[in-house]
Amino acid sequence: MALRWGRGWGSASAPVLFSLLARGRRCHPTITTVGSSKEEEEDARAILGPDLPDIWSPLPTSLPRPIPNPMRPLPPAPAPPTIIDGKSIAHQIRSHISTHVINFKTSYGKVPVLAVILVGHRRDSQTYVRYKIKACNDVGITSLLAQLPHSCSEDDVLHSVTSFNQDPSVHGILVQLPLPQHMDEERILAAVSLHKDVDGFHPLNVGNLALRGRRPLFIPCAAKACLQLLLRHQIDLVGKHAVVIGRSKVVGLPTSLLLQRHHATVSIVHAFTHRPEEITREADIVISAAGVANLVRGSWLKRGVVVIDVGTNPIEDPDSEHGYRLTGDVHFDEAVKVASAITPVPGGVGPVTIAMLLSNTLDAAKEACRSSV
Amino acid sequence: MALRWGRGWGSASAPVLFSLLARGRRCHPTITTVGSSKEEEEDARAILGPDLPDIWSPLPTSLPRPIPNPMRPLPPAPAPPTIIDGKSIAHQIRSHISTHVINFKTSYGKVPVLAVILVGHRRDSQTYVRYKIKACNDVGITSLLAQLPHSCSEDDVLHSVTSFNQDPSVHGILVQLPLPQHMDEERILAAVSLHKDVDGFHPLNVGNLALRGRRPLFIPCAAKACLQLLLRHQIDLVGKHAVVIGRSKVVGLPTSLLLQRHHATVSIVHAFTHRPEEITREADIVISAAGVANLVRGSWLKRGVVVIDVGTNPIEDPDSEHGYRLTGDVHFDEAVKVASAITPVPGGVGPVTIAMLLSNTLDAAKEACRSSV
Repeated sequence: MALRWGRGWGSASAPVLFSLLARGRRCHPTITTVGSSKEEEEDARAILGPDLPDIWSPLPTSLPRPIPNPMRPLPPAPAPPTIIDGKSIAHQIRSHISTHVINFKTSYGKVPVLAVILVGHRRDSQTYVRYKIKACNDVGITSLLAQLPHSCSEDDVLHSVTSFNQDPSVHGILVQLPLPQHMDEERILAAVSLHKDVDGFHPLNVGNLALRGRRPLFIPCAAKACLQLLLRHQIDLVGKHAVVIGRSKVVGLPTSLLLQRHHATVSIVHAFTHRPEEITREADIVISAAGVANLVRGSWLKRGVVVIDVGTNPIEDPDSEHGYRLTGDVHFDEAVKVASAITPVPGGVGPVTIAMLLSNTLDAAKEACRSSV
Repeated sequence: MALRWGRGWGSASAPVLFSLLARGRRCHPTITTVGSSKEEEEDARAILGPDLPDIWSPLPTSLPRPIPNPMRPLPPAPAPPTIIDGKSIAHQIRSHISTHVINFKTSYGKVPVLAVILVGHRRDSQTYVRYKIKACNDVGITSLLAQLPHSCSEDDVLHSVTSFNQDPSVHGILVQLPLPQHMDEERILAAVSLHKDVDGFHPLNVGNLALRGRRPLFIPCAAKACLQLLLRHQIDLVGKHAVVIGRSKVVGLPTSLLLQRHHATVSIVHAFTHRPEEITREADIVISAAGVANLVRGSWLKRGVVVIDVGTNPIEDPDSEHGYRLTGDVHFDEAVKVASAITPVPGGVGPVTIAMLLSNTLDAAKEACRSSV
């Protein structure tokens, strides 16, 4: 190793890091969380990662330099790999949220409310919205659905957003993406009130996610879901090489920023990357959100890698009920032979992403009620 | 190559990309630039990079997979390497700004004003502030300096920030970092008016830099300087592997975000990265901002790499006038034997960073005057 890390933090375990954090630099949230509980503070800190200073301590230049060894043998294959069970994790999180919704109702005499805006008749969007609304019902969150025809104008959508912004009984607003081509998506998303932005796409939330020491009000659900899966499986992130495939504001960008908050070394691969398989093969952790079925082959992966597959790509399947089935970005049968842990599709990131939407909505409701006290 | 890129954009030259952009997806700035000139629009677009959609087109799975060849021979050494002359580029930019300051005066009957807040007596901070003020004078920008003692309170600094925020004759505000340990830097920076944030550290500016399709009001000066050097030397960025060493909000973070806007494949290396030399050796472009003298050795670099060294580290030198001299993060004598282009320290990124501060201040002044029309 060419560098020794100051104070030996590179190998510290998570509890040690948190205790160091307590003694170390302060974390300055931008939002005053009036009366937020200790548990909530700890949750927020866990998902954003510990605040660690960068202390480089290079070896004296007189020491011999490391010699690259391209023929270094691969470590033995871990067997069997862990199949990360998103359904089960989502179930645990949703149970926890159900309890908190009951407590919320007891404290404030009302229930959290999520407003969903769905434009047009895309089958996939309709399915996702149905899942989200059902999930709300299951945990006791009220949902409102504004359904607009594909032919409506941008101003019609903005009008819906504004109505929900102004309605104090609504705590979270979700605009189902993608919007029809004739609409300015950025303009509509920017209109969502910062305090109801449960998707976390507002540029101020993104900026506060990017800047260490700051705390966004909301983190995009899929990014938060990826971190939940990694943290709950105690995957060490500090200093690990994480390759994020895809760079959308929905998944790739916020996940790359969140992994950096956890002190991973992050590489962002996208459709313009030359030889994406080469850089992906260097990764300790691969998070794929390219939206291309079976893009990531077994040959793209290092032995022992942890694979989080955010892709949910419909592919034709005459044997399935609807004539298609969902598959991930990662060729599962090949990857499972190489990885030490991997999420399946479906049943991996998807259910946890929906659980994170519920969690963000509950947070929005708590924040709104505390601010109005 | 394992992937063919949709529409063959991977190898398109910069003018082709811009022309494709004009026909492609719209770029939606968040800030209405009332009456901004075509030249300004083009400048902003150039520095933020073209807005290209991600179109993955994987090869059919039946084709043979690429076989990694760890023994691939190195390309021949480029000789001699280009020494990127930051002084000369800064001189050109400053001449251009001088002309625009004269035009601004003619149009609005006033001059751009930069307010600088300096707390304490750090020798390096004092030197930087002196350079910045001299640079303002040279191009006709008025500067104001608020100098506060090290012992002052956070509220004293906030009071200075608020005064400058409220003063309509001030267009840009710069808080010289680092602030004394007893102050909450994030709180003070967040107090700077978004429209006067010429350092580009406001979380909304950072969020708008991170999100493709959006335009920040200001981009941090050092990040903008790195891109100026690369663009003016016509270094192709699309799909290239850029390794950014360091992740501060001043340099590393905004530079990594800006390189992503230019469709580079970006890896962010920091003090917790395991074996930083290995990932750095894969880079086509290395931008180092770790703040560690001679951290990056020749053995860290691939033959033909482009090296941008943002480090300005004082090291003892009894032969120099002040007893020390500035050196970069990169071991220049070793790197120059490997790189195809490299910035020296001093005389590389530094002068262009100061030119970018002048440019941001001029932009702030124009925007303020246009908004008040």
